[in-house]
Amino acid sequence: MPDLDAALAFYRDVLGLTPHPPEVADGAAIVSLSFGDSEVELLAPLEPESPIARFLDRRGPGIHHICYRVSNLDRALDACRAAGYRLIDETPRTGAGGRRIAFVHPKATAGILLELTE
Amino acid sequence: MPDLDAALAFYRDVLGLTPHPPEVADGAAIVSLSFGDSEVELLAPLEPESPIARFLDRRGPGIHHICYRVSNLDRALDACRAAGYRLIDETPRTGAGGRRIAFVHPKATAGILLELTE
Repeated sequence: MPDLDAALAFYRDVLGLTPHPPEVADGAAIVSLSFGDSEVELLAPLEPESPIARFLDRRGPGIHHICYRVSNLDRALDACRAAGYRLIDETPRTGAGGRRIAFVHPKATAGILLELTE
Repeated sequence: MPDLDAALAFYRDVLGLTPHPPEVADGAAIVSLSFGDSEVELLAPLEPESPIARFLDRRGPGIHHICYRVSNLDRALDACRAAGYRLIDETPRTGAGGRRIAFVHPKATAGILLELTE
């Protein structure tokens, strides 16, 4: 995966991070790197109709989404609904690493695709 | 600043974060919120020719950049140059909160505008 390797070089050689073993989710290869208590995920499409392939076709390479870890995902989704934020996932689903995740619609959050996880 | 207040509501009401007092840098109002050992910065332009105003004119609201804290900024910039990454700031300058910062060119990092700080 030449694009993924090229992107990875910056995080490894400049920031000195150690990549975790690659994973597959939502039709994309994912390499994650821990940075403090945060995690950087580099994604490359494995299937032409995957969400990441469509994002790249439409926008070119860039930042796809930001994910925040919350203590209780169901309660956070309830808070989104109560405040009128539009959700992509009304109920949590399983993402990379078996985590429970849900996406908030970018229309709700200043054009930023936000993922919530637990 | 109605746009900033609207964006802030999500971070305050859904994620439960506490905003820090507003700052001004590069012609933008900045409200930051601590999240674990990371920090989220919400920016709104104060001047029509500021970098943030030009970003919004060109792209609309969204994620502007990602910042990584490194232990030695000069050494990180040397590593960038050694690996052939194009820099926006060849030498560190002073950013919000008086921190030493430098931006890496998005052409170097898969379309992502990256800031490095110490």
